[in-house]
Amino acid sequence: MKTITVNLGEHSYPIFIGDSVLSDKKLLDQFVPSNQILIITNKKIAPLYLKIIEKNFIESDYEAFILPDGESYKTLDSLNQIITKLMEKKFNRTCVLIALGGGVIGDLTGFAASCYQRGVKFIQIPTTLLAQVDSSVGGKTAVNHPLGKNMIGAFYQPHAVFSDISVLKTLDDRELSAGLAEVIKYGLIRDKEFFCWIEDNIDLLIGRDSQALSYAIERSCINKAEVVGIDEKEIGYRAILNLGHTFGHAIETSLSYKEWLHGEAVGCGMLIAANFSKKLGLLEQKQFNRIQQLIEHVGLPVKIHKNVKFDDMYENMKVDKKSRDGVLHLVLLKSIGEAFLTSDYSEKVLKEAIKEYFC
Amino acid sequence: MKTITVNLGEHSYPIFIGDSVLSDKKLLDQFVPSNQILIITNKKIAPLYLKIIEKNFIESDYEAFILPDGESYKTLDSLNQIITKLMEKKFNRTCVLIALGGGVIGDLTGFAASCYQRGVKFIQIPTTLLAQVDSSVGGKTAVNHPLGKNMIGAFYQPHAVFSDISVLKTLDDRELSAGLAEVIKYGLIRDKEFFCWIEDNIDLLIGRDSQALSYAIERSCINKAEVVGIDEKEIGYRAILNLGHTFGHAIETSLSYKEWLHGEAVGCGMLIAANFSKKLGLLEQKQFNRIQQLIEHVGLPVKIHKNVKFDDMYENMKVDKKSRDGVLHLVLLKSIGEAFLTSDYSEKVLKEAIKEYFC
Repeated sequence: MKTITVNLGEHSYPIFIGDSVLSDKKLLDQFVPSNQILIITNKKIAPLYLKIIEKNFIESDYEAFILPDGESYKTLDSLNQIITKLMEKKFNRTCVLIALGGGVIGDLTGFAASCYQRGVKFIQIPTTLLAQVDSSVGGKTAVNHPLGKNMIGAFYQPHAVFSDISVLKTLDDRELSAGLAEVIKYGLIRDKEFFCWIEDNIDLLIGRDSQALSYAIERSCINKAEVVGIDEKEIGYRAILNLGHTFGHAIETSLSYKEWLHGEAVGCGMLIAANFSKKLGLLEQKQFNRIQQLIEHVGLPVKIHKNVKFDDMYENMKVDKKSRDGVLHLVLLKSIGEAFLTSDYSEKVLKEAIKEYFC
Repeated sequence: MKTITVNLGEHSYPIFIGDSVLSDKKLLDQFVPSNQILIITNKKIAPLYLKIIEKNFIESDYEAFILPDGESYKTLDSLNQIITKLMEKKFNRTCVLIALGGGVIGDLTGFAASCYQRGVKFIQIPTTLLAQVDSSVGGKTAVNHPLGKNMIGAFYQPHAVFSDISVLKTLDDRELSAGLAEVIKYGLIRDKEFFCWIEDNIDLLIGRDSQALSYAIERSCINKAEVVGIDEKEIGYRAILNLGHTFGHAIETSLSYKEWLHGEAVGCGMLIAANFSKKLGLLEQKQFNRIQQLIEHVGLPVKIHKNVKFDDMYENMKVDKKSRDGVLHLVLLKSIGEAFLTSDYSEKVLKEAIKEYFC
């Protein structure tokens, strides 16, 4: 088992990466110091892993809350249901919430933990590659609003993250690709060596080779932990983690959080960001080609979903959290391994760069 | 004008107390560093003070959001409406929310500010005595849940608090009494000298003497700022600020947040806490009598509202945020000016102490 620490002073916490973390009762007990436990998961994950998790807490007053699957349930209404469950069980400030699932479950559970009685402990047990490499780490919690993604939330760190590699065996192919989008992101924004490693090992990753996946998760988490340790609340530097996300979120909002997985939208969004960077003369054509090839090879969408209209998507981009006084800041690429945040670009070129990705 | 600082490191902020703070454009401008401003208020306050506030922001992109009046609107649904308004206006992370109203508006606005885009600035302009001496200071923000008061929220500090004494002239008598309950609280929990001063000046306070009110607000805020500076997130000491609140909240929940003002429930709750302290042999009869006389003199309820049933109220007490592993901790009095938190009491005596306050 590997351990990575996210260094945030008194809010520091460990990420455990291994192949039997789910049933490591001794380890889990250490980070769930309560008899009042609510496990939050969904209908897809529950039949697969809920029993294994519950076994660890058989002596406690635990309860499971099972949501339908999908981004469209990451809402204030689901949050309210969780709070109601906690109130009905008379759980107090010492209770612990456990997020067992992908990014939707993790973001929702984290936000519920941040605001129930003004803050209770929670741990992350991510069951998708995307959640293991990205959303479970760093304390960004949120629910969606019909007019914008992740618009209601908090910076609230988990008490620990337990990433079990073995769960990736049951992942849909689409979910795997979506996770690989975020893995590729770390290479693109700040770790060229890692990007080259991904290129060399992409077929092992797609083939779910345990060792390759374990290394990709570890290296992604190290990158994320470093960025978050430098800028927890996204005053500046942390924004680079959002490469492709402004485009991706706008696509997701235009699709009412249906049709595409978050990672799929991010994959397509990174391609648009790379294209825009190229058009602005920042990114070389050769490097752009490598990015495009990798994203295509992984099976991520390389065109925007047919149900999205340009005007809708462009309007949705304007409420991005990286807007400042009406000006949209974007994460762009100087080269593979070097991203930066800027508002210094031509809106005309931006529109062209996006339009090329409509069918 | 007087200025008190709440010392919380990088989250420190000033409280301004004076008689023309509302129209002090220069001062307000300093703490509203944005062109995107949402003023949140209610139907009772808007006709009285909204125009005066708006005058200060005439050059900005400001908008007002006006709720109906009352504790029963401090809900997740109202929060959602505020977020929708912010999204429709395409307000970004640099926007500022202004809470213009009493405790309901302040708590709701603060929570909205804490979670919109994971946190934007907000300022408090409290328009009730209760909000000026208590709820606007200290960063406890929340909305209610049908099963419990303030159960969904965050610790999130305002950027500044502007207390204008002149607004107290238009306050209902009931609202004034409700505020005086919290003023009395500060004397009871940690400032005997202040309690004696309140006893000596109670008729001036009830008569809305500006100087007396100004002193009471200042001294209350100094006490609150000290407690919050020691224990911002209520790990321990801050709990004493909740004298009478466990009983009060349970009454409010039993009444579905209707009928009584928060301060009225707290006034009655403090009396129950004092009675229980007396029955446990902690508080002298003479001191209890002084407390009872003062609360009665101020016009606060000295019996629990007739619509409350004992069993309901007692059940509601159990979900208090001061519960730990199923044991309810209560703030009790050793003497006037000395409160403490304890779980070492007889439940039988507790029930008796409460039952004496049913008609």
